[in-house]
Amino acid sequence: GITSKFVRQALPSIEMSLDTFPSPGGYNTPEQVHLTQGDHDGRGMIVSWVTPLNLAGSNVVTYWIATNGSDVKPAKKRAHASTKSYRFYDYSSGFLHHATIKGLEYDTKYIYEVGTDKSVRQFSFTTPPKIGPDVPYTFGIIGDLGQTYASNETLYHYMSNPKGQAVLFAGDLSYADDHPNHDQRKWDTWGRFMEPCAAYQPFIFAAGNHEIDFVPNIGEPHAFKPYTHRYPNAYKASQSTSPLWYSVRRASAHIIVLSSYSAYGKYTPQYIWLEQELKNVNREETPWLIVIVHSPWYNSNNYHYMEGESMRVMFESWLVNSKVDLVLSGHVHAYERSERISNIKYNITNGLSSPVKDPNAPIYITIGDGGNIEGIANSFVDPQPSYSAYREASFGHAVLEIMNRTHAQYTWHRNQDNEPVAADSIMLHNRHFFPVEEIVSSNIRA
Amino acid sequence: GITSKFVRQALPSIEMSLDTFPSPGGYNTPEQVHLTQGDHDGRGMIVSWVTPLNLAGSNVVTYWIATNGSDVKPAKKRAHASTKSYRFYDYSSGFLHHATIKGLEYDTKYIYEVGTDKSVRQFSFTTPPKIGPDVPYTFGIIGDLGQTYASNETLYHYMSNPKGQAVLFAGDLSYADDHPNHDQRKWDTWGRFMEPCAAYQPFIFAAGNHEIDFVPNIGEPHAFKPYTHRYPNAYKASQSTSPLWYSVRRASAHIIVLSSYSAYGKYTPQYIWLEQELKNVNREETPWLIVIVHSPWYNSNNYHYMEGESMRVMFESWLVNSKVDLVLSGHVHAYERSERISNIKYNITNGLSSPVKDPNAPIYITIGDGGNIEGIANSFVDPQPSYSAYREASFGHAVLEIMNRTHAQYTWHRNQDNEPVAADSIMLHNRHFFPVEEIVSSNIRA
Repeated sequence: GITSKFVRQALPSIEMSLDTFPSPGGYNTPEQVHLTQGDHDGRGMIVSWVTPLNLAGSNVVTYWIATNGSDVKPAKKRAHASTKSYRFYDYSSGFLHHATIKGLEYDTKYIYEVGTDKSVRQFSFTTPPKIGPDVPYTFGIIGDLGQTYASNETLYHYMSNPKGQAVLFAGDLSYADDHPNHDQRKWDTWGRFMEPCAAYQPFIFAAGNHEIDFVPNIGEPHAFKPYTHRYPNAYKASQSTSPLWYSVRRASAHIIVLSSYSAYGKYTPQYIWLEQELKNVNREETPWLIVIVHSPWYNSNNYHYMEGESMRVMFESWLVNSKVDLVLSGHVHAYERSERISNIKYNITNGLSSPVKDPNAPIYITIGDGGNIEGIANSFVDPQPSYSAYREASFGHAVLEIMNRTHAQYTWHRNQDNEPVAADSIMLHNRHFFPVEEIVSSNIRA
Repeated sequence: GITSKFVRQALPSIEMSLDTFPSPGGYNTPEQVHLTQGDHDGRGMIVSWVTPLNLAGSNVVTYWIATNGSDVKPAKKRAHASTKSYRFYDYSSGFLHHATIKGLEYDTKYIYEVGTDKSVRQFSFTTPPKIGPDVPYTFGIIGDLGQTYASNETLYHYMSNPKGQAVLFAGDLSYADDHPNHDQRKWDTWGRFMEPCAAYQPFIFAAGNHEIDFVPNIGEPHAFKPYTHRYPNAYKASQSTSPLWYSVRRASAHIIVLSSYSAYGKYTPQYIWLEQELKNVNREETPWLIVIVHSPWYNSNNYHYMEGESMRVMFESWLVNSKVDLVLSGHVHAYERSERISNIKYNITNGLSSPVKDPNAPIYITIGDGGNIEGIANSFVDPQPSYSAYREASFGHAVLEIMNRTHAQYTWHRNQDNEPVAADSIMLHNRHFFPVEEIVSSNIRA
């Protein structure tokens, strides 16, 4: 495999201060607007926003089909949000509104507005095309973003790529828990930081350890409280019983989100759900099968080394048997792409416990290099193990441009380059329709 | 290792019917009376019982020091229970009372009464001696009991052993979930079935998969609801945030209970708790360190084979480094005792993945042979692997007779023999004070 020589100077990324993202002005102005898919197949959207007060109309989103300037008067529809708020130690949240809009037209741009009286704010989103095997679609892939100047670089780098239509987010969002008493105001600043992107395209979030917010000694023993209040999803649409594991289908992709930090032993809800979910996948309709799970199962960085073993030994064989195309993880603050390997023959006494090349296996991507406050993880295991194809201790993001049922162009972009430069790339061959070995055309400026 | 030839005829154990254990007669009569430790060091007891109605006084337990017939009028004290009830699909529970009594005298027999008006029922218990390294104490060890005629044999076999002072229960209690819609009345009959034992000595319960009761399609998606309502414990006394993992100290033993079916990945509450808990163990005070976890980490039965791997890879090295004496599991409906082995050197690429002899390692006992409705698991992996010392597909229970800081007589009793007969036994040497290899003196009538 390749260990890129390009090592970003290992400066810890500097946190953007609270006042970098003040509440927007005006009276009861909606803020932290963000989107996620609101159903299983892409005709639903959850619009989320926060208001300081819960005035009449605060929980209403108005939306209509964009008419591109034609003088046709669009039919305006309204959806009412469910509204929550929470306390955390000495913090009280604003009013967290989440409105699920269903029955949208595929492949259509919508305009939407939130806010009351003089503080109405307008945004837009475009629904994905109807589910289909050859539907082109481009996902951004980001992990462990946080809110430093490096995070800002990563986000705006991604936003400068016009192709990105939705983001697969591998967990660890705001890093509020790296601040005293998990300073929940950092969740608010993160919401404001993300809005310019997340209000216009949906983020499919997996939960990371920084979403646990488990602090019993300050009276906060309930894991995931802030995260589940702020970033709900349509988990029921995939028969899940928890927002921490669910799936969505979007264009030609079936995306399964798992939780490294929930129970996953046999008989547990997540185990039972995944066992059934893999049977529900229809590769004829959605050929690209992608799994997002925060803690990587293949990781040759010394940081968090082998932390994913416990979940790998439970589910790796399922993903290989299901011919998953890609597994996206974060957690390690560097970048790595694995070969297609598997390690599923071990039976306690046969000693068969090394990863081996396996065309049915997924490629494992570690994309925890969003640039958060904890800085870069620049200590890789030496020598580079055979299961590791490319690794580099640099901040950046990835892009998955699905072309059709057989090909998807995957690229990784380090922050130091301009967006069009792909520091790592591979033309993926779909494991269902075209399980042929990939040829790596990495364009490396080592 | 030994694979005992003695194979009980593999008849499925026949369930005792509902009407084997009717509600006791009388008006609002307390039933399903049972005990568990109510503090960390043995001066506390949780007395639990159920009444059909919640009349005044239903939630009061009166208790006093047994005066053994002397005419001294004992000082009667009262404790008030917290009272819960729950619904499950079309079932409504009775009123579940749980009274925590604290500040008891060590090594003292208490009489206690529950019930109102004409339906007062009297029981007794004896508190353990004060915590100390050489304090003798005898634990019964039972797992996967259920409520069949074989279960009845197992329980009364154990009760016929006068030495047993408290029971370490390795999970899977009532098997209500093996009945239509998890027929919750089977939890009630189990409570009545257990009372003759559990009302007189505390059971230290670990949760098994049969306690999950996760049935989303009948509107019951909350795992462990019946179990946590019926069998609370003093988990806060060990700084746990959940009743599913906790510890108690009793005489010369420190008992750690873990949950195979809760989250245990790094950063999760159970992980964080165990990491700290192992530091809190003081072998000078409680030399016998015992862990109870339902799904076995070493199991050479084909039934549930390797299911414990996911948790083993997470915590095995911790238990070896802490020199745990004994790990008790259930789940597999047969009996097995392991050698002292460990498998903690693997690093993905070094191929070191076989269990090896290790004097610091615990002995792993599988004791899921209580006799439940699912019958015996009589298909062992062949040949017997080197990590397996003794295994037999028979129903039974075990007894751990701690003598002092260095020696504890462990025996396993199959139901076909009379209690005094030990089908398997080993004089355990304490890993802290006397880490010398044990000599096995199995008295096997193969």
